[in-house]
Amino acid sequence: MSRATSAVDTGVARIRCVQLAPVVGDLAGNRNLILGAVREAKDARVDVLVLPELAASGYVFSSKREASSVAVTAEHPLFADIADELAFTTAIVVVGFCERGERDVLFNSAAVISAAGVLAVYRKTHLWDREKLFFTPGTEPAPIVDTPHGRMGVLICYDLEFPEMPRSLALDGADFIAVPTNWPLGTTPAGEHPAEIILAMAAARSNGVFIACCDRAGTERDVAWTEGTVIIDQFGWILDRPTGDGSVATADIFPALARDKAISARNDLMADRRPLLYSRLQSSPTES
Amino acid sequence: MSRATSAVDTGVARIRCVQLAPVVGDLAGNRNLILGAVREAKDARVDVLVLPELAASGYVFSSKREASSVAVTAEHPLFADIADELAFTTAIVVVGFCERGERDVLFNSAAVISAAGVLAVYRKTHLWDREKLFFTPGTEPAPIVDTPHGRMGVLICYDLEFPEMPRSLALDGADFIAVPTNWPLGTTPAGEHPAEIILAMAAARSNGVFIACCDRAGTERDVAWTEGTVIIDQFGWILDRPTGDGSVATADIFPALARDKAISARNDLMADRRPLLYSRLQSSPTES
Repeated sequence: MSRATSAVDTGVARIRCVQLAPVVGDLAGNRNLILGAVREAKDARVDVLVLPELAASGYVFSSKREASSVAVTAEHPLFADIADELAFTTAIVVVGFCERGERDVLFNSAAVISAAGVLAVYRKTHLWDREKLFFTPGTEPAPIVDTPHGRMGVLICYDLEFPEMPRSLALDGADFIAVPTNWPLGTTPAGEHPAEIILAMAAARSNGVFIACCDRAGTERDVAWTEGTVIIDQFGWILDRPTGDGSVATADIFPALARDKAISARNDLMADRRPLLYSRLQSSPTES
Repeated sequence: MSRATSAVDTGVARIRCVQLAPVVGDLAGNRNLILGAVREAKDARVDVLVLPELAASGYVFSSKREASSVAVTAEHPLFADIADELAFTTAIVVVGFCERGERDVLFNSAAVISAAGVLAVYRKTHLWDREKLFFTPGTEPAPIVDTPHGRMGVLICYDLEFPEMPRSLALDGADFIAVPTNWPLGTTPAGEHPAEIILAMAAARSNGVFIACCDRAGTERDVAWTEGTVIIDQFGWILDRPTGDGSVATADIFPALARDKAISARNDLMADRRPLLYSRLQSSPTES
């Protein structure tokens, strides 16, 4: 099967996630954390740097007023500063921020930035818990950005727990999916990966795509985080996670491998789908 | 949200999977294995017994002629014999068989049987590898059977690797999903579960349903099996797997717990879906 191809025939791509510990409400301090991570990634010849959800603003807002106080648009100098850091490189940065829309509507968004500036903004479509108090859910499908390092889809945190989301991106030809997250710490049985990582592994394998989830670190207003940052290959296996007190996961991947969906002599993850049998997915649950 | 409810308000249900080692082509011998497992389950007061894919026929056929030689219909005495064993119980058996349709068309099917006889037959809709040489894929959605032990969905093996399938069953109100499987042995990194189990855990968690996968044992014509039989709770965690040389997994579950899809004060696995954003799932991959 002929698949969607990137504008550039990609070779190896170095993917990095940095599990920052932003401070809620501290736009200036978080900007320094973000720019520091960008500079270090540039020195390490990283092609795609993924940073956490709401890295620019922090997460555990006490009120919509507080969230609004750190809400910015894609025209904010933070993004121009990141673009400036990327000058003369082909690198891409994905970073979460609190986005101000019209009439003080707020979105939990992620920006995709290159040396040329902001390439795309995705507004999270599945909001988690208290986010519903502050944010309006996005109404547009998750984007695919055609980068020099492959076709990159973007999801944010809870989005990934809806199998429809990575599936849609894979059907549209994503090679890898960048997922800024803030995973509140849950309970995990001994010997198991955190549930969010299991869902990410399954999403990667069932769609044949690479996935890079960048969680956050630190404790914010008594909320602790899973610190589950992980880079996963197209078969669903873990390529890298931060170890010990580390905060960085890095992996060199070949994004174009995700374009081969064959998994046996006679099977193809996408061609084997039976869309006519999936009509149920367009509707809401059965009401009795 | 008001959810579909079972005809009977279910309490605890004892689910068992028995990882049989059927012999290809030996309908009489496999019948004895199956009836033995049914009798033992009855003695153990099992409510729902799940047996492997193609347990009645074996799996690694050398030709369509061989598959046809062990193909039966739902009227075959094997199913009446199982029903007879279940007399005066409310137990349910799910077992895979090679089904003969009209004009010698063959299906990789699973029968759902109670004391009253065959309640449903599901024809596998996603065929794996050489199955495509022998079987015709089913054209009907996977069924939900309203049993005294909860609303049971049925999938077969590779079906479960398509997130659309468990999702559709959950949307239609399944409490648990019985999955007869034959998982050919693959490569698993040290410390990880087999990939099929990771996919099953993710399917259970993202849909809030219990899942019972019954794999097979033994080596058949040089094909070895994962022996990955597993019963998983509605949060995606493993309740039981066969240990050592064992072949049995058993768990007492409360199927009705799957009807509560709330996962936080403000989140519900089903109500949080955004079906209008999932239209991509109805179509085939992008062609370039």
